[in-house]
Amino acid sequence: MNHNAKIKIGIVGGTGYTGVELLRLLVQHPNVELTAVTSRSEAGQDVHGLYPNLRGHLDLQFTAPDVDNLSQCDLVFFATPNGVAMKLVPELLKANVKIVDLAADFRLKDPLVWEQWYGMPHACVDVLEQAVYGLPEMNRTQIAQASIVANPGCYPTAVQLGYLPLLEKGLIDPQHLIADSKSGVSGAGREAKLGSLLCEASESFKAYGVAGHRHLPEIRQGLSQATGSPVGLTFVPHLTPMIRGIHATLYGRLNADSGDLQALYEARFAAEPFVDVMPAGSLPETRSVKGSNNCRIAVHVPQGGDTVVVLSVIDNLVKGAAGQAVQNMNIMCGLPESAGLNQVALMP
Amino acid sequence: MNHNAKIKIGIVGGTGYTGVELLRLLVQHPNVELTAVTSRSEAGQDVHGLYPNLRGHLDLQFTAPDVDNLSQCDLVFFATPNGVAMKLVPELLKANVKIVDLAADFRLKDPLVWEQWYGMPHACVDVLEQAVYGLPEMNRTQIAQASIVANPGCYPTAVQLGYLPLLEKGLIDPQHLIADSKSGVSGAGREAKLGSLLCEASESFKAYGVAGHRHLPEIRQGLSQATGSPVGLTFVPHLTPMIRGIHATLYGRLNADSGDLQALYEARFAAEPFVDVMPAGSLPETRSVKGSNNCRIAVHVPQGGDTVVVLSVIDNLVKGAAGQAVQNMNIMCGLPESAGLNQVALMP
Amino acid sequence: MNHNAKIKIGIVGGTGYTGVELLRLLVQHPNVELTAVTSRSEAGQDVHGLYPNLRGHLDLQFTAPDVDNLSQCDLVFFATPNGVAMKLVPELLKANVKIVDLAADFRLKDPLVWEQWYGMPHACVDVLEQAVYGLPEMNRTQIAQASIVANPGCYPTAVQLGYLPLLEKGLIDPQHLIADSKSGVSGAGREAKLGSLLCEASESFKAYGVAGHRHLPEIRQGLSQATGSPVGLTFVPHLTPMIRGIHATLYGRLNADSGDLQALYEARFAAEPFVDVMPAGSLPETRSVKGSNNCRIAVHVPQGGDTVVVLSVIDNLVKGAAGQAVQNMNIMCGLPESAGLNQVALMP
Amino acid sequence: MNHNAKIKIGIVGGTGYTGVELLRLLVQHPNVELTAVTSRSEAGQDVHGLYPNLRGHLDLQFTAPDVDNLSQCDLVFFATPNGVAMKLVPELLKANVKIVDLAADFRLKDPLVWEQWYGMPHACVDVLEQAVYGLPEMNRTQIAQASIVANPGCYPTAVQLGYLPLLEKGLIDPQHLIADSKSGVSGAGREAKLGSLLCEASESFKAYGVAGHRHLPEIRQGLSQATGSPVGLTFVPHLTPMIRGIHATLYGRLNADSGDLQALYEARFAAEPFVDVMPAGSLPETRSVKGSNNCRIAVHVPQGGDTVVVLSVIDNLVKGAAGQAVQNMNIMCGLPESAGLNQVALMP
Repeated sequence: MNHNAKIKIGIVGGTGYTGVELLRLLVQHPNVELTAVTSRSEAGQDVHGLYPNLRGHLDLQFTAPDVDNLSQCDLVFFATPNGVAMKLVPELLKANVKIVDLAADFRLKDPLVWEQWYGMPHACVDVLEQAVYGLPEMNRTQIAQASIVANPGCYPTAVQLGYLPLLEKGLIDPQHLIADSKSGVSGAGREAKLGSLLCEASESFKAYGVAGHRHLPEIRQGLSQATGSPVGLTFVPHLTPMIRGIHATLYGRLNADSGDLQALYEARFAAEPFVDVMPAGSLPETRSVKGSNNCRIAVHVPQGGDTVVVLSVIDNLVKGAAGQAVQNMNIMCGLPESAGLNQVALMP
Repeated sequence: MNHNAKIKIGIVGGTGYTGVELLRLLVQHPNVELTAVTSRSEAGQDVHGLYPNLRGHLDLQFTAPDVDNLSQCDLVFFATPNGVAMKLVPELLKANVKIVDLAADFRLKDPLVWEQWYGMPHACVDVLEQAVYGLPEMNRTQIAQASIVANPGCYPTAVQLGYLPLLEKGLIDPQHLIADSKSGVSGAGREAKLGSLLCEASESFKAYGVAGHRHLPEIRQGLSQATGSPVGLTFVPHLTPMIRGIHATLYGRLNADSGDLQALYEARFAAEPFVDVMPAGSLPETRSVKGSNNCRIAVHVPQGGDTVVVLSVIDNLVKGAAGQAVQNMNIMCGLPESAGLNQVALMP
Repeated sequence: MNHNAKIKIGIVGGTGYTGVELLRLLVQHPNVELTAVTSRSEAGQDVHGLYPNLRGHLDLQFTAPDVDNLSQCDLVFFATPNGVAMKLVPELLKANVKIVDLAADFRLKDPLVWEQWYGMPHACVDVLEQAVYGLPEMNRTQIAQASIVANPGCYPTAVQLGYLPLLEKGLIDPQHLIADSKSGVSGAGREAKLGSLLCEASESFKAYGVAGHRHLPEIRQGLSQATGSPVGLTFVPHLTPMIRGIHATLYGRLNADSGDLQALYEARFAAEPFVDVMPAGSLPETRSVKGSNNCRIAVHVPQGGDTVVVLSVIDNLVKGAAGQAVQNMNIMCGLPESAGLNQVALMP
Repeated sequence: MNHNAKIKIGIVGGTGYTGVELLRLLVQHPNVELTAVTSRSEAGQDVHGLYPNLRGHLDLQFTAPDVDNLSQCDLVFFATPNGVAMKLVPELLKANVKIVDLAADFRLKDPLVWEQWYGMPHACVDVLEQAVYGLPEMNRTQIAQASIVANPGCYPTAVQLGYLPLLEKGLIDPQHLIADSKSGVSGAGREAKLGSLLCEASESFKAYGVAGHRHLPEIRQGLSQATGSPVGLTFVPHLTPMIRGIHATLYGRLNADSGDLQALYEARFAAEPFVDVMPAGSLPETRSVKGSNNCRIAVHVPQGGDTVVVLSVIDNLVKGAAGQAVQNMNIMCGLPESAGLNQVALMP
């Protein structure tokens, strides 16, 4: 790829929160030319009509999704509901278009598990086999070679990054992991759902999906890969009254001789541009990553006991979605991994 | 006590959030006459000048705290910072005034543990010995006989009520309890602290006190009493961007044959006026108890595994403070336990 | 009416925010027996299944709306969308059932104006003629005689109460009134609308309905009645990121000799149980009325100029809807006007 | 100035919200080198220790303010409390350092008016005379020549930009302007004040400063300059429960023949990089400028009457403070006016 030229980018499904967040990041990206943003319902409308924050930054209209048109792109992001990408991706791959899917279609390697959790058979098992799970901190080399990358879910990003060092070194009991996770409401998307109303979700806190959330098998798959055998995980997501942010509080039973965990974490992520291991004793706030692609992590062993507590925070729409997607795009296209991703979190 | 007469009530330290919440409940209580609300800094001022919600409900001025004056009361609430009550209480007890202390002075039975966590020696160990820990669901009989009741902390109320049935029956491993707890900002009180500013605490989520929170020894003491031997507990409190509410997510490793947990919880709390065991599968929201004295509990065993998840919600200012204090007052004074406590939560 | 007996109450359309607020107030009302709560979509379900705050307070199921059944009631509240009540009310009136309509069907005296603003012809103009506009501070005597009362809108309540003393005395230019009004999001109801999502409405502030809001003709009608001739009004509503509360900031050009406005306001509302004229210089907060039926008002003349600024706050769901409806019920049924309405606002 | 070299920048008082916002913008600015950030209380500490969002973006420690050190800078920003800058500025000007003061010290041209509103005599009236009021849309040419620029207040920015086209053309009665303004809580700064607590300021709305706010004389001064004679203004600020954002709702009585206001506004701001006149009928949201330097404006004439309503929104910390300060720096230093200021607002 000629690095002087900009890469041509399309977005399928640009009306949701991950779509607009992709747009926010890409209109500021030095190596990108946005050529198509599709939306069946908004076709013909100015993109900045729906998202006035883009006024003055983007002069593009939504178009209906069209394979011929999208085939002109170097890379296409899917920011669509689950089940949409898997129907369009095979044709685009044939046209040599690279793909980053922000939905769940290519996250679970086992199509039967996918069908069990998403309620529909997988439409392109062969493509699923070649898809790479896009957590750069685990799979950077494969991402660089991939034609199609499954961008991780928001909870799975925060939880996996928090647990990786411990599981890779075998320092905790992998059969009894507890991931108590809290998300802002934007994780529920831009659908007009009762439970996402300000009057229903603000000034309140609740758990949901306790019986089984779709991110459970995804996290289990990743952590099992890290530890080399199936893990046991209790994953309880909660809704917290704010727009952006995930805070994962991760618990593990330490083996007898676990050593210096602070040093372990710092070493594991020393070369990672977007994982910040905070000083010992830190208590990361989600707002410290609001609008940025960072994951901040702190590791604690309260009262000198045998239970480790890892605190991991991300912006669910950035490192948990659009930012990580751009990070994957950078890796896939041979660009500097941090290109267009140096935003400072908005604080306060 | 003559039930036609109203009991005379004093509040020491009426300017904080638990103070005003006591006032909200007591001005509506059918059996109570408020005779003194003390505040050194506001002495002489109308109480409703500080709290305009009380305009039209209360025509009383703050007075400086004065033992002679308070001795005219049947019962005095202390809504003061830690360490204040223990200096005034002995004299009031001598004057036959009953006491409910909403601070921590009489919560920990061991004065050395108190000194370790609160940084000062206990001022009246003899009174500490006769104080009853005011969780009615555990200690109702003793509360009815008590001259002085230590009103439980907010987190300890939510956590203990959630764990009690399991620990009383020995159904979970008591050495590895995990209480992931979330509180609204009013738990930090009405002090002008940087971390409690709207611009610092809203649109963000964070853990705090991970190394050791003062409610840890209090919860440990209560749960150890329930299980009959010392428990091991990891307690991680979090700050969630809302005013009121605590959500405790409690984890325990189940023994092999734990039986029907839903039935266990329903039976344990069947006679409790303020503990509501929700139907199987429920996900209680903190807003469902906002302004009310209820604790709502749901019990889950996700994915049929060996980990139980108990969800327990309260309003930290009501069941977690002022409401429970009134409940204790009712019990101590022979009033109906629910008198003045039938508020319906404000929703939305 | 025998005051020992409780009056039988029905609610048509009990699933919205005004519906649940009516239920919160009525389950605590000493003179009321709830006999029917209707909802087509929820018929057969427990009311407290939809609103868990009512668990333990109400054991009733939603029923489909049925005239025979509702005819057994002494009074029926309509908490339905606009246009529903006017179809059912005539039959109920024939059965001697009193009506309080919380929707707009009977608020505008001129059916042509109604049609213009609500987009449908009025279905029972004869009933409209006998309906009384239910602002007790203007029309108490007529309300006491009425069979059907049109409960005022939320903005109109706050704006009219704020302007009444000035207009009744002719102290401001009635042709150039400016009512800059701000409402919490619950004013938009419990519909799953995009603009009411937490992620759309929190951390933001905007005007809406600037070109023309349905409360404009309602306010104009009331103020014109007060002043004796048509008024000119600019009414700009705004959405503010909170659940409950309306703050109306009202501007008027003072005539040359306007006198002591503080004394005027205090005299005008001296006998009103739910209008609180605050001391000179006060700045009422909406939270000081959250959950209560009060309207708090302050009057200012900044910099000694010729412009008066009136600040008027209510809880839009209480004095702006359900609380005022209960107040009207009390007046219509000969009960004490404040019965069941002595809630203290929740603060903080 | 050599444009290949970066300009050296100092910030005096870098711990408040305008300070950290300056840092957020300046660490991303292509032409700037930050050489000093001062804070007496935090001297020696890492800047990113106070503001973790800056971790990885800035490796600088707070230093005590020192004139010798600051004299090495090309330009120094003062983000200090009122009254601090006027004591240090004269010496820095002598050392040929340019100044942008984000406080109020140099905003009011008349030192007596300054003393009246800020309660202290002005310390350097001669410097005050040469200071330029830094609203680029009014004073761009003078700013380019200035050694010292008084950065406008947040409310004055939103209100002046909204009124300018009307007053410059004499289209409204300048004696009866009404500026009903709403601000997020960050406008109150990062001080631990009771009224700024989440539990005091969230879920509530109130007016403040009705009797007289310090931004009143500042706005009057600017609008009088625009219209050529003293204006009459009623300015009512309100606190709205969110972090960032100002929404000014501006009212004016139109002269008989006011013409096409939409065209007027579009023409007036056509060349302005940071003022966005929205399409006719628009209702700008504050979130559409959150984190960006834009002011978005819409102009309405409701119901075809004689009252114009202008809606003007900014981010109080960006266009209302730090962003406008950087814009002024760009102009003063001959840099492209938009350098470092192309952030897209964070939405949602």
